[in-house]
Amino acid sequence: MDYSGRQQRLREALRSSRLDSLLVTHLPNIRYLCGFTGSAGTLLITPASSIFFTDGRYTDQAREQVQGARIVIKRKLPLAAVVQQFARSQRESRSIRLGIEGQHMTVEARGALSALLPHHVRLREAPPLVERARMIKDAEEIALIGEAVGVGAGLYDHALAAIGPGIREVEVAAKMEYAARTSGAEGMSFETIIASGPRSALPHGRASSTPIEPGGFVVCDFGVILHGYCSDRTRTVYVGAATAEARRVYDAVLESQLAAIDAVGPGVAVGKVDRAARRVLEKKGLARYFTHSTGHGVGLEIHEAPRLAQGQQEILRPGMVVTIEPGVYLPGKWGVRIEDMVVVTERGCEVLSPTQKEFMAV
Amino acid sequence: MDYSGRQQRLREALRSSRLDSLLVTHLPNIRYLCGFTGSAGTLLITPASSIFFTDGRYTDQAREQVQGARIVIKRKLPLAAVVQQFARSQRESRSIRLGIEGQHMTVEARGALSALLPHHVRLREAPPLVERARMIKDAEEIALIGEAVGVGAGLYDHALAAIGPGIREVEVAAKMEYAARTSGAEGMSFETIIASGPRSALPHGRASSTPIEPGGFVVCDFGVILHGYCSDRTRTVYVGAATAEARRVYDAVLESQLAAIDAVGPGVAVGKVDRAARRVLEKKGLARYFTHSTGHGVGLEIHEAPRLAQGQQEILRPGMVVTIEPGVYLPGKWGVRIEDMVVVTERGCEVLSPTQKEFMAV
Repeated sequence: MDYSGRQQRLREALRSSRLDSLLVTHLPNIRYLCGFTGSAGTLLITPASSIFFTDGRYTDQAREQVQGARIVIKRKLPLAAVVQQFARSQRESRSIRLGIEGQHMTVEARGALSALLPHHVRLREAPPLVERARMIKDAEEIALIGEAVGVGAGLYDHALAAIGPGIREVEVAAKMEYAARTSGAEGMSFETIIASGPRSALPHGRASSTPIEPGGFVVCDFGVILHGYCSDRTRTVYVGAATAEARRVYDAVLESQLAAIDAVGPGVAVGKVDRAARRVLEKKGLARYFTHSTGHGVGLEIHEAPRLAQGQQEILRPGMVVTIEPGVYLPGKWGVRIEDMVVVTERGCEVLSPTQKEFMAV
Repeated sequence: MDYSGRQQRLREALRSSRLDSLLVTHLPNIRYLCGFTGSAGTLLITPASSIFFTDGRYTDQAREQVQGARIVIKRKLPLAAVVQQFARSQRESRSIRLGIEGQHMTVEARGALSALLPHHVRLREAPPLVERARMIKDAEEIALIGEAVGVGAGLYDHALAAIGPGIREVEVAAKMEYAARTSGAEGMSFETIIASGPRSALPHGRASSTPIEPGGFVVCDFGVILHGYCSDRTRTVYVGAATAEARRVYDAVLESQLAAIDAVGPGVAVGKVDRAARRVLEKKGLARYFTHSTGHGVGLEIHEAPRLAQGQQEILRPGMVVTIEPGVYLPGKWGVRIEDMVVVTERGCEVLSPTQKEFMAV
């Protein structure tokens, strides 16, 4: 990974934001900038250098992983170590604007940091500079995401093999998660959703001990983490002999999803993709049952920028990786969602690990 | 659960902290106070009432779960809804001190809230009042934690059945996690640690694709979430024929763990338990390899107050549930950790689901 390049570009962004330095405390941002994958650390980006602070538990790991930054191992809290670092540069008489990640730092941590800092260091809430950089994936990241999506896609075969009347939702999830682990995944990228029957009308129906009953859909929304990158996919299958209404709704959701994928391309506003999905459902009289946004970015985190939703201003650019996941939820009855991840290319987009998504019943 | 009692006691604590109201945003605290288990909501505790805000995705779930609070469903962000609520009481001329959870609320969220609030409402960083209440588990909670620990304890049999030369760490984790799911667990309470050989010297060696080799320890640190409550346990097993040093270190860690458990009781300072564990290792010349604290509280979250560590001031009280988990880590060689959860009783403590922890080789 081009850690030095990422840090260099961040320095330029800091200058444009009139910040002298940035205190990076959000772990996915730290991983993105210097490669550290542990669970405790702070990265200080100054105009001239990068310093990574962690504690004794991570000495070896930091030496092995961290690139483009000097490593400082501290017994004290990393924040106090940062303060020491700044205190050392106190001879500088001019004031220093130190950016913090306001989206991630707690009020308490900010208070503690502020109380310790010398007077000439002023804390400033930085714009989400690292998140903005992370929106555009480079070739290496796209390859890793592709691998994660490939492993994730394979899990659905295990779900299909398990799903049937009387099987509990958690058993389906357990089989998928077992397959994920044995395929080398570090873990699931979020709590596996296996939502059957009326529970499929809940957009966030985490697998429960409910037994699957015939005569309804099962929504399967799942993803893995592989080499730190997340996958996210949804498939929906009918159990039993489908009604005409079930077929109709399923086909409408699929048409909506394909229309949204068609709309994705460089220079396209994210809201336009959302509208493309919604317009199909409007024509079928189903738009009011599509109660969430059309998609979101995916990378080191399962939910990243950009959001594909009404009112969002972002413009799609090559290298962005987003989900396209319209759904229709008939309360008390059932729901359908179909989701793929796509990468925005120079000419349009490419679906990652495309697999069968026509209507299917088991 | 005694949700109304919990809210009532929180109101008293708010008065003692000179706060008029508290905005509860931390989800485990919300669950503790009113029973809501979803992933989006805000609970406002005022002197006279409790109001729970969530969005349309959680209408049914909120009605089913929330107790002791009025439910308000909003399309807008919950924070904006809270502000509306306060704006409505603007006729009150006196200023209102609204507490926020500074440990959990981000700097950005505080800024957004502050910008929206009417002038007479002043934000104050509240002490961790809900966390303090949560330290003492009631009988119902202890029963649920006991169930979680029981299910968690059973997973080690699956680990032992799987562990052997050539087996990858992730396969062991996969089998345990599969068993957890089919036992009804909602999920794992943290990323399963299966750390073999030199990796067992890493206190946080999450299961990797490393194959287990003979001639070293495997540290297994694992837990489940059951009915919302977490379990946490570590067992360490030797693979192959153990050396005298391995036996000696293992027995020292076990002696240390038993000494710490012996030290637990009502009225005992947490630092004393930590010292009890360390003193045994000092006598064996191993104290410098015990590089973390002795334990932590467990409940709705895997890491809660109190911390059992040097410099911590908390006094143990009946109803507290804590881990006791000393370890010795010989860098580049191997490590040993033994962990149980105990509940502090009126007379001492009780180990939850005690199981075999003598030295064992496979």
